[in-house]
Amino acid sequence: MMGRELKTRIFDIDLGKYQVLLHKEDAEALGVHPGDRVRVQNDETVTALVDTTDSVVQPGEVGVFLELKTRFDVGDGAVLRLYPAEKPQSIAAIKKKMHKAKLSKEEIDKIIVDVVDGTLSDVELSAWVTALEINDMDMEEIEHLTRSMVKYGETIDFGGEVVFDKHSIGGVPGNKITLLVVPIIAAEGLLIPKTSSRAVTGAAGTADVMEVFGPVNLNAEEIYRITKKTGGVMCWGGGVNLAPADDIIIRVEHPLSLDPPAQLLASVMAKKKAVGANKLVMDLPTGEGTKLPTVDDARKLGRMFMELGDRLDMEVECAITYGGQPVGKTIGCALEANEALAALRGLDHAPRSLIEKSVAIAGIALEMGGVVGRGLGHARAEEVLRSGRALAKFTEIVEAQGGKVPKGDIPVGKFQETINATDDGYVAGINNKAIVALARATGSPRDKGAGLFVHHKRGDKVDQGEPLLTIYAESEYKLREAVALAKKTPPVRLEGMLLQRLHDIREI
Amino acid sequence: MMGRELKTRIFDIDLGKYQVLLHKEDAEALGVHPGDRVRVQNDETVTALVDTTDSVVQPGEVGVFLELKTRFDVGDGAVLRLYPAEKPQSIAAIKKKMHKAKLSKEEIDKIIVDVVDGTLSDVELSAWVTALEINDMDMEEIEHLTRSMVKYGETIDFGGEVVFDKHSIGGVPGNKITLLVVPIIAAEGLLIPKTSSRAVTGAAGTADVMEVFGPVNLNAEEIYRITKKTGGVMCWGGGVNLAPADDIIIRVEHPLSLDPPAQLLASVMAKKKAVGANKLVMDLPTGEGTKLPTVDDARKLGRMFMELGDRLDMEVECAITYGGQPVGKTIGCALEANEALAALRGLDHAPRSLIEKSVAIAGIALEMGGVVGRGLGHARAEEVLRSGRALAKFTEIVEAQGGKVPKGDIPVGKFQETINATDDGYVAGINNKAIVALARATGSPRDKGAGLFVHHKRGDKVDQGEPLLTIYAESEYKLREAVALAKKTPPVRLEGMLLQRLHDIREI
Repeated sequence: MMGRELKTRIFDIDLGKYQVLLHKEDAEALGVHPGDRVRVQNDETVTALVDTTDSVVQPGEVGVFLELKTRFDVGDGAVLRLYPAEKPQSIAAIKKKMHKAKLSKEEIDKIIVDVVDGTLSDVELSAWVTALEINDMDMEEIEHLTRSMVKYGETIDFGGEVVFDKHSIGGVPGNKITLLVVPIIAAEGLLIPKTSSRAVTGAAGTADVMEVFGPVNLNAEEIYRITKKTGGVMCWGGGVNLAPADDIIIRVEHPLSLDPPAQLLASVMAKKKAVGANKLVMDLPTGEGTKLPTVDDARKLGRMFMELGDRLDMEVECAITYGGQPVGKTIGCALEANEALAALRGLDHAPRSLIEKSVAIAGIALEMGGVVGRGLGHARAEEVLRSGRALAKFTEIVEAQGGKVPKGDIPVGKFQETINATDDGYVAGINNKAIVALARATGSPRDKGAGLFVHHKRGDKVDQGEPLLTIYAESEYKLREAVALAKKTPPVRLEGMLLQRLHDIREI
Repeated sequence: MMGRELKTRIFDIDLGKYQVLLHKEDAEALGVHPGDRVRVQNDETVTALVDTTDSVVQPGEVGVFLELKTRFDVGDGAVLRLYPAEKPQSIAAIKKKMHKAKLSKEEIDKIIVDVVDGTLSDVELSAWVTALEINDMDMEEIEHLTRSMVKYGETIDFGGEVVFDKHSIGGVPGNKITLLVVPIIAAEGLLIPKTSSRAVTGAAGTADVMEVFGPVNLNAEEIYRITKKTGGVMCWGGGVNLAPADDIIIRVEHPLSLDPPAQLLASVMAKKKAVGANKLVMDLPTGEGTKLPTVDDARKLGRMFMELGDRLDMEVECAITYGGQPVGKTIGCALEANEALAALRGLDHAPRSLIEKSVAIAGIALEMGGVVGRGLGHARAEEVLRSGRALAKFTEIVEAQGGKVPKGDIPVGKFQETINATDDGYVAGINNKAIVALARATGSPRDKGAGLFVHHKRGDKVDQGEPLLTIYAESEYKLREAVALAKKTPPVRLEGMLLQRLHDIREI
């Protein structure tokens, strides 16, 4: 085959994949264009994506980026031989999905291998998620996609043991229930190696919140060992290479704000399968501002998770929960951690919405695990929480992960301002999106002490001058910005007495 | 709004768009992720795409590439202020097309503005062409798309004059008919400012072939002036900024081998409209190995071009031509130029297939332009060619472009090898794809003297030892590679006498 010897010019930039930069003349001589591929030969051969320039490298040179430099251990001026390479076969499979055809197990495998290897360019990955968004997959394809995502990544194997997991579809701020659910389940002798995400666009992910107690970056071996020892972990999913295709695909889903149902189902279930789970409780928050606006949406998705679970030998139960406003009263890492601690410690000010949701979810798991009979899980979960056994288990897990549970509260941002009601009224709603934007403006999740305290939830009566919202920040500057945003886009909506009176009249 | 001051670190790489590289910590603080956008503020404000790293730039630094460096005229260590920016509105329009909705004129405009400005990332451009491939557009949308592509680019205005253009859908090697069609039309007093492409994946584009006579890189003013003076140009479309969205969209279509019908129609017609054409002859080659395998495919596409033409006040006539084998006998720049010259000069060895196709296409234009009545164009075009007036006009145009027509032939590659028939038989077919691959292996279109001479076309009887194919190259090395490829994948398919005898018997 036609090849071409070119001198390396090193660019110390990481592109996340093998890519070379060719002068347009050399690209033409090789018969390749931007987005095509070349085989780059040194002692070994690597396939790289092509980009072209007419100025940055000269004819006869090949621009080499960090990934390839490291792989080949070459410096400036080394000689590499380049050959044009075929398109990967996965592209034919992507085009098949564009044309509405059903993909075979083998075709899906080819796509996922190339996703994980970094073989596919952003252009190709984007075509994949767009085709999935438009043409979807049937359940058999989704099963293959899930298995493939598990196969090409790290897995944890608990042997034949029953292993639980819990997942929330997300979209609800302040959803710190994992901090209660995991210790309740583990306290009853069940295994639950729970990995969580950091916030991508949200206010604070469970991994962000847990981090205030100590390290959350566990590897597969640590997850296995700590779970075997204590019954559970509460760690960051990004520290372990479970179903890594997901993280790569998210990189193109995010700029398009896309989340094709087939990919969502496969991504969630692949992470669970890879961590070794065979029993799963799904939390499906529904309501205004969530990913599942109506109960019907939640039911439909729940059924799909259960069907996919059957195919994957994973028992799935779903809880449709109310997600139209934050869970509990706090949003932000330290504030949420303190609220969860209050609930674990049985303190009076622990909000009922947090406790209710946590024991409901944990209760389902206790029933699935045979700890109690059907219908008795909720009461048992509540008992584990009230007895202090959940707090003891929480402390045990945090310490096993290398962290520490403080005696009192975790310090929160010292710059604080409270926004009061300017009129009498009822809280008609709390806007999740506005709450998230405001929490991010305070510095969350980066600033651990930053966040929000919501004094009143939906339905509460509020008098003029009563506090609605307290804003916490770690700098005066961020506090000012957040306060300005809160005034511009108030996240708590009050309805005046006039409307309320009408309502009262109707209720008579 | 929250902003962040960062120190520049310059990377001398051109990315074709405004992009910045942030350390993950700064990206998190700004609340942006890879593929999101930031407003970068210096004296002015520019929106740039975000990529992130945890190693190449340090916290507090912003990696700045050539485009932004040039725009802001900054060096290393300058301070820029960055703010998170919203997604462009065009992304909502792209997602609307994903969800099968019809786009408005305004939505299409937003997409094309952002394509031309380099605002859209590869991920977003790919989602656009994938959505178009799957969900298509109706004719009203295609009209808006075409007009939008014209609007956001350079245009040439010939006032109220009748201006012709000719376009071939392509896919047929050796299709050098423009070199005959343009001078025939211009010799009859009509205007035809013909821009052509270079080969992207083909053997040789018309612009590549014309280049052996001299410069083909004309700007808009030169196209206008030379056309007004001589009646025509035969130049490279890439030298002028006509409907530039097309070139950007092709960059993502190419790696996916996609060519959505709506985008194809709009791209072709936008280039024609932008050059000022109001009458167009479309060449629709059909047959095995072309883009339009059956006559029905060609008819369907032809009807769409005519309907779109009506909407754009452009008169379109279509010629469905046979494209199942190369036009003429040569493939490659100098070889094709010589063959076209032979036809212009009326030499005996000029292949009939080239002359027939050229006069048929030119004849349609002569009828559309009212030079002759309906049904008389073919004869008139042939007369213009035979009389030498086409040659004179060709010479005039080439010289006006700054080139020169040689007295004799243009030199071809001195390394040559002829492949002979190993048996008696009939040429059952010439494989276009194999011919193109072989021509590219000889060095075409980069090596002007490289290419192929096809001694026999489909249906010819060939005796053992007779030449089938002569390969021309500019280096011994490339000749060897091409010969090896020709033996591995013979582009000329012979059918043996046995089959032929059966055929003879049936014909008795």
